[in-house]
Amino acid sequence: MTIEIVPLALARDIVESDDLASLITDVAPPLRDGDIIVVTHKAVSKSEGRIVDLGDVQPSARAVEVAAGHSDPRLVEVILGESRRILRQRGPLLVVETNGGLVCANAGVDRSNAPREDSVVLLPLDPDGSAARLRSALEARTGASVGVVVADTMGRAWREGIVGTAIGASGLETLRDLSGAVDAGGRRLQTTVVAIADELAAAADLAFGKLERVPFVLVRGYAAPGNGSAAQLIRHPDRDLFR
Amino acid sequence: MTIEIVPLALARDIVESDDLASLITDVAPPLRDGDIIVVTHKAVSKSEGRIVDLGDVQPSARAVEVAAGHSDPRLVEVILGESRRILRQRGPLLVVETNGGLVCANAGVDRSNAPREDSVVLLPLDPDGSAARLRSALEARTGASVGVVVADTMGRAWREGIVGTAIGASGLETLRDLSGAVDAGGRRLQTTVVAIADELAAAADLAFGKLERVPFVLVRGYAAPGNGSAAQLIRHPDRDLFR
Repeated sequence: MTIEIVPLALARDIVESDDLASLITDVAPPLRDGDIIVVTHKAVSKSEGRIVDLGDVQPSARAVEVAAGHSDPRLVEVILGESRRILRQRGPLLVVETNGGLVCANAGVDRSNAPREDSVVLLPLDPDGSAARLRSALEARTGASVGVVVADTMGRAWREGIVGTAIGASGLETLRDLSGAVDAGGRRLQTTVVAIADELAAAADLAFGKLERVPFVLVRGYAAPGNGSAAQLIRHPDRDLFR
Repeated sequence: MTIEIVPLALARDIVESDDLASLITDVAPPLRDGDIIVVTHKAVSKSEGRIVDLGDVQPSARAVEVAAGHSDPRLVEVILGESRRILRQRGPLLVVETNGGLVCANAGVDRSNAPREDSVVLLPLDPDGSAARLRSALEARTGASVGVVVADTMGRAWREGIVGTAIGASGLETLRDLSGAVDAGGRRLQTTVVAIADELAAAADLAFGKLERVPFVLVRGYAAPGNGSAAQLIRHPDRDLFR
């Protein structure tokens, strides 16, 4: 069965207090059971007011030290506030573990597509919660049973480039465990747990477009019934060989 | 524009010397300019005879030492032959840098979906070359200008689960550089290089299905004209903060 990846463009930017569910249903085809809506974290963050004006930020001594002439100490101050610890630093790049446990560049704090000059957009405080609220609102509005993924683009160890990655999820399976399943030749598959929410985020990122106003993508035709979270996709530091 | 992810199922397993281009055109809708075919590395490896019977393998002293009672020394011998170096080891898991430069578990040597009991499937020797040959054969057969991605599923640092990843590519852009581009608000995007070939592999993996015989996926409606390689997706060790 064909999987469809449908970009849902808006005519304007998202602002604080926007009701994402109504924006989505305004531009999406009628939603059906099993549809999955992937939304950029930036749309969620903006609607939740997760924006900081750097002009309001007083950098700490530690932020000045970490910035070390490579970056704006006010930006570093914001990043440090979003982080548990710094894993690596190279020039202006800080690879951190966020307060939510994600390993990512600059704690996801981003200047691009920010609403005002000299402002930055933070990650949602609780992306799984944001996904759950959006899912409830979509279901109330449409009567369809849907899944929601909140996506960001992230760098990886070992590989160039960023890819769409799930940072929030509700109403779908996020990790699909095929261990114990039997392949076409009748052999048992070895450990095979697929991060399907990340694959959905990557597929959606093909349609987001960084330059146009496409904050939502509808994925139709992919069955992922379940009740997973994006938090489950974060490897516990004790299990991680590369931290 | 909607992107379509179309699984192309076969009625049988792929065997050595199979002509993948004819298998694909037998089951695909007529190909069009810009179509992208994503093929599992396993289909490529089998057609290229990249299969080893463990019964034929004599483990070296080093393989016995590395196996350390956790795994089959014959399997470890095969993995070591495919690897430049071991980056991490935990129990039977070896995270290596392959001879081709990929960082992955067990050098991609895999027992599942192997054609014979006690045999293993290796990665293609030159996945970008395999992609280029398949692309030429498809273009000769159909007259359409297409892209080809050879995909494997790989684990990541920091995150649970495996995701579809491009290990070979031909006839498409693999990294899309948006630096210098201007966002919807007129601001310049910071470093934003998107690993679109990896996103295509991840999207296709949603349709592959580990259990059924779906070795090929058609991606239609995504424009990625260009001439990149999957080798470009491999971060040079000198630039890698996590190796």
